[in-house]
Amino acid sequence: MIVVMKLSATRDEVDAIMDRVINAGCRVHPIYGEERVVIGVVGDGTSLDKQQIGRMNGVENVVPISKPYKQASREFHPTNTVIQVGNVTIGGDEVVMMAGPCSVEGREALIETAFACQEMGAQILRGGAYKPRSSPYSFQGLGEEGLRYLAEAREATGMPVITEVMEPELVTLVADYVDILQIGARNMQNYALLKAVGRTNRPVLLKRGMSGTIEEWLMCAEYILSEGNTQVMLCERGIRTFETETRNTFDINAIPVIKHLSHLPIIADPSHGTGKWEYVGAVSKASVAAGADGVILEVHPQPERAWSDGRQSLKPKRYGELVGQMRVIAQAVGREIAYPSIGSLLRGDYNCRARTNHAKFSLNSSA
Amino acid sequence: MIVVMKLSATRDEVDAIMDRVINAGCRVHPIYGEERVVIGVVGDGTSLDKQQIGRMNGVENVVPISKPYKQASREFHPTNTVIQVGNVTIGGDEVVMMAGPCSVEGREALIETAFACQEMGAQILRGGAYKPRSSPYSFQGLGEEGLRYLAEAREATGMPVITEVMEPELVTLVADYVDILQIGARNMQNYALLKAVGRTNRPVLLKRGMSGTIEEWLMCAEYILSEGNTQVMLCERGIRTFETETRNTFDINAIPVIKHLSHLPIIADPSHGTGKWEYVGAVSKASVAAGADGVILEVHPQPERAWSDGRQSLKPKRYGELVGQMRVIAQAVGREIAYPSIGSLLRGDYNCRARTNHAKFSLNSSA
Amino acid sequence: MIVVMKLSATRDEVDAIMDRVINAGCRVHPIYGEERVVIGVVGDGTSLDKQQIGRMNGVENVVPISKPYKQASREFHPTNTVIQVGNVTIGGDEVVMMAGPCSVEGREALIETAFACQEMGAQILRGGAYKPRSSPYSFQGLGEEGLRYLAEAREATGMPVITEVMEPELVTLVADYVDILQIGARNMQNYALLKAVGRTNRPVLLKRGMSGTIEEWLMCAEYILSEGNTQVMLCERGIRTFETETRNTFDINAIPVIKHLSHLPIIADPSHGTGKWEYVGAVSKASVAAGADGVILEVHPQPERAWSDGRQSLKPKRYGELVGQMRVIAQAVGREIAYPSIGSLLRGDYNCRARTNHAKFSLNSSA
Amino acid sequence: MIVVMKLSATRDEVDAIMDRVINAGCRVHPIYGEERVVIGVVGDGTSLDKQQIGRMNGVENVVPISKPYKQASREFHPTNTVIQVGNVTIGGDEVVMMAGPCSVEGREALIETAFACQEMGAQILRGGAYKPRSSPYSFQGLGEEGLRYLAEAREATGMPVITEVMEPELVTLVADYVDILQIGARNMQNYALLKAVGRTNRPVLLKRGMSGTIEEWLMCAEYILSEGNTQVMLCERGIRTFETETRNTFDINAIPVIKHLSHLPIIADPSHGTGKWEYVGAVSKASVAAGADGVILEVHPQPERAWSDGRQSLKPKRYGELVGQMRVIAQAVGREIAYPSIGSLLRGDYNCRARTNHAKFSLNSSA
Repeated sequence: MIVVMKLSATRDEVDAIMDRVINAGCRVHPIYGEERVVIGVVGDGTSLDKQQIGRMNGVENVVPISKPYKQASREFHPTNTVIQVGNVTIGGDEVVMMAGPCSVEGREALIETAFACQEMGAQILRGGAYKPRSSPYSFQGLGEEGLRYLAEAREATGMPVITEVMEPELVTLVADYVDILQIGARNMQNYALLKAVGRTNRPVLLKRGMSGTIEEWLMCAEYILSEGNTQVMLCERGIRTFETETRNTFDINAIPVIKHLSHLPIIADPSHGTGKWEYVGAVSKASVAAGADGVILEVHPQPERAWSDGRQSLKPKRYGELVGQMRVIAQAVGREIAYPSIGSLLRGDYNCRARTNHAKFSLNSSA
Repeated sequence: MIVVMKLSATRDEVDAIMDRVINAGCRVHPIYGEERVVIGVVGDGTSLDKQQIGRMNGVENVVPISKPYKQASREFHPTNTVIQVGNVTIGGDEVVMMAGPCSVEGREALIETAFACQEMGAQILRGGAYKPRSSPYSFQGLGEEGLRYLAEAREATGMPVITEVMEPELVTLVADYVDILQIGARNMQNYALLKAVGRTNRPVLLKRGMSGTIEEWLMCAEYILSEGNTQVMLCERGIRTFETETRNTFDINAIPVIKHLSHLPIIADPSHGTGKWEYVGAVSKASVAAGADGVILEVHPQPERAWSDGRQSLKPKRYGELVGQMRVIAQAVGREIAYPSIGSLLRGDYNCRARTNHAKFSLNSSA
Repeated sequence: MIVVMKLSATRDEVDAIMDRVINAGCRVHPIYGEERVVIGVVGDGTSLDKQQIGRMNGVENVVPISKPYKQASREFHPTNTVIQVGNVTIGGDEVVMMAGPCSVEGREALIETAFACQEMGAQILRGGAYKPRSSPYSFQGLGEEGLRYLAEAREATGMPVITEVMEPELVTLVADYVDILQIGARNMQNYALLKAVGRTNRPVLLKRGMSGTIEEWLMCAEYILSEGNTQVMLCERGIRTFETETRNTFDINAIPVIKHLSHLPIIADPSHGTGKWEYVGAVSKASVAAGADGVILEVHPQPERAWSDGRQSLKPKRYGELVGQMRVIAQAVGREIAYPSIGSLLRGDYNCRARTNHAKFSLNSSA
Repeated sequence: MIVVMKLSATRDEVDAIMDRVINAGCRVHPIYGEERVVIGVVGDGTSLDKQQIGRMNGVENVVPISKPYKQASREFHPTNTVIQVGNVTIGGDEVVMMAGPCSVEGREALIETAFACQEMGAQILRGGAYKPRSSPYSFQGLGEEGLRYLAEAREATGMPVITEVMEPELVTLVADYVDILQIGARNMQNYALLKAVGRTNRPVLLKRGMSGTIEEWLMCAEYILSEGNTQVMLCERGIRTFETETRNTFDINAIPVIKHLSHLPIIADPSHGTGKWEYVGAVSKASVAAGADGVILEVHPQPERAWSDGRQSLKPKRYGELVGQMRVIAQAVGREIAYPSIGSLLRGDYNCRARTNHAKFSLNSSA
């Protein structure tokens, strides 16, 4: 911590700061400049509060030196965190493809979409059972029913499943059904929720808040890490700026910044980052080029009928083309995107396959 | 809803939109302009999703016409909402003074501060028992112990008490102890929490999120109102912008805008709105001049020892001077700020009084 | 300047920084902390570039300590700057009222509006002859013709006149006609223009740029001051944020911040700060309460016919009421707003007066 | 234009709007909804001002339908604009590489850097002769001397040259020396300057303002286009947001958005878009993947000695590696990045070549 004194600070004011610092068990290094005094503070500053010092007489400003996050910091933990979910590795050489509908809209629709996404290259299925909607009058998600469908879709396709959890009380329930817990942007600083997911053994995808600074975001990861859950991945999904042509401003800078400051995997969400499907392809490719460890996208067979976020959802066919383009870019930056498994391709063309497998799966599941 | 078609939209695309609208039970009003077609949609649009229509072929843009909030809207509810808390009326002719420490730090400290604030003109006591802190390693509040001290401070001073609740599970507990439930800025869109406080019969102070638009903020109020709790007041506490000289940018415009769009009371929080005590006075006076229904401020006897937010806390004496200045401005805009009760003034000078009353109260409360 | 080294910085890297600093004629104060080294730099840092040091190996970050502005700084110039324009004093005890149409639309219209504003309490007349319009197809101002009308309006009413100048080449011409040169928000960092007005002897009103930080704004004032023109006043006119309900977000915090950091007068522009006339009154009163030295407002007899900015313009009658309300608030904060001169009031009721005086003035001016 | 009436609007108020519209020669399409009246306006709206209508009684809001830009719009001009500068084609199949120092620091330094950039793959040389600096006390550029060196560097290397012009008076001078005129971010809305470059026959690179919306940016391009200069390219260089970890937030979304809305080429500037050289590589690659038509970067042989922007400058060697990586990505998205000419490669290794050619060129130029 560096304490910058005012030009007008008196000797007594400077002394008072130094006494306070010394009493807290830290060392002081006063620097008497030509204009003003600056006091360097060395030692375990946990007992010294920046705000308290800043409120003392004669202080102009207090500049913190240490980063406030430790467990999330690459300085203290240089090796990349790698998270294994089923047979998918996040944070390794591969760029992981996550896709699915915004909301779980029904059992058959979900399973059909899951197969379609898988065939097009998705490795992890997304789908919302609890939906944070800006209006209380909008569809709020199917709840536990939606969780059950997600579990069925996992069973049918073999894909791990990610879904959002919105309240601490539901964390255990949601963790029972799905493989990855998602913290949504609106809840980035919902600390009770962060602590709750930190006490599970499920990997967590932590979305950046609409106005969350990168430092705040890493501090929220720190909340989860400090509860003992080390399987945290971060998700850039666009920040709020003055620009209204897109729903959010996807912060592409955040990808190399996170890679620099942290060891945690970083996933890109261009669906929310742009809010319009026309722009999703360009920003997905950009994310892979910038070094993202994964891309999560909203895919719906009929976006113009989607119960939420239709405006930003891709159709499966276009998603498949985009995965192909991302794969070439991944290779250009020395990484890989997995090919769809032979199994999912052998299921044949989409319409046919959906019917067949779905029928088969229905039989199995009702057995 | 107005659907703006692309210049290149075909007749079939226009027809498809109109069919969709008509099938949803609404009426269409196509306007064939010189450049493009625009389709007005009339009727109960709840079954029509803006995003779905926006995803249809040939559509350039969809412009909503109706405001998404109803119960929070002045258009539908022209009369001001007035909230009674104990003997304090919020949203009426008086501008209500709320004050207290950021965090509840202990029983004696709280009661002493409460008396000091009351003597200086505060009518409602604030104090955090559960604290949303950006670091998991910072003091997180005294929890239920803090709630008990708040209840004691209320008993001692007669002032109603407001505190933040951060998770749905704790709503009932907190509501048992305090008079007003506060939803913090980070939780503005914590919908589970909004619903939970909406099911209580306690007044709610809903802080604006750091990047919450006014429309989103009113939609969050709508969440509470739609659960049946009509006692909602809004609190402007500064928004996040590019400016770093202050902690937040207090949005003074929001005061007349809320008065125009809504019937709910609006409270100003210049402590968080500026983040530096030097600027709190100017912005408090500005808030009263702009029409705020109340001002909530952080007051601490020793800000340089405060466990949180010391940088933005006023000392009681300065707070008292400021209340006096706000009172003159309130009168200048045709409103009132209550004078401290004779009782609280008769308790004598601050140091003396604090000791005396506190002693007295200690006796009473241990009786 | 404080140089923060990386955790991983080597001794050689630390030495290289210190050599560089010493060679630049400064002193170094290395602080060896528990985690990292921090180097305090003392001396005339003008030959040391923050960016250069920041680019050296092993450097994590460089933190400037001195403020980059000197002449604009209150630390170096504690006394308030007071600017005299005709018989109006800006930056003294009075809060100065400036008003007039957005654009000069014609000779008669301007003079009529000028009389109306004066009668309602305005002391300085505003009006745009050169208009920065977002569209090249919009009315761009009457140019020199507009300047002539402003000069005539000054002669007719006795009010000093302020107008915007948009290019360096026109500074001399504009300065010949008017009393105060305005630098618009879009040109805050048009350095050629700042230097040009810095070389005149006219007072300058420097508007804050839409995304100008307070520090950048003061640095732009420094550009003018450093050319020798000390008569600079700052104008807060709202900043760009994510909020769309108002045209800009009026930064009320900026008023006490500028008072704290600088000795220059600060003028509020609630017309642009809100963009909607409904909100102008509340924010004008707030600005006076917060300590503004003046309020500049757009006033037009028929806003719904104004050639620009009609949406945010007040009618003269409402302006007059607002001046009355601001006067009461000015008194509440220990300041004054001048009453209209007896002369302007004796001119009788508005319609009548406008005709009479205008006729009289027409005769005079055509003589 | 769509005029949304208030719920409380009277019939007379609706009629007044319609009369006004009809008198302006437009057609009205009133839509009587269940809650309110909405009036569609059809026809050449140039004589109708959105602000004037918005100020009429009973009006809630006015929603523009047409885009305000025409010449910059892809709707009206579907074919990509392609700009030829020397033997470099901008806006075609190739992604164009522009590089060079932030400031021109001297004749030899510039020519040496130019050769180094060219050898590493740059096709166009950038360098500032007039520098917009936030401090009046900082180096302001070499001025015309810098222009001469740029012209010499062009002669020496054969590369076209781009430089910033900051005031209308200097446009002719700068256009005499260089191939592309750059409008800096601070001057995006310096309309006098836009008109001046619009009257030249030089291609213009228009940087986006720090808080310029995409629509405003296109309107600034419209200013240039409307003066007759059709050779406009846009440059995304990051916008100002709340995030402080990077100097600006590079708006990657802007690349596909500009491609969608406009036919003008879009160039990425990751140096300013990030402000830190560590992040430049990732964002450069992302820009190519997103579809940028060119990438402009700051390159300096000794960034830690650069007179400006050293923090964000790459060294030539790293730049060369990055061009190679961008080339692979360009191919992955179906485009090309030119290889350095054999001539520039035959000049041999960098140090040697720089000396040799520079010596040779010195002789030539002094001849």
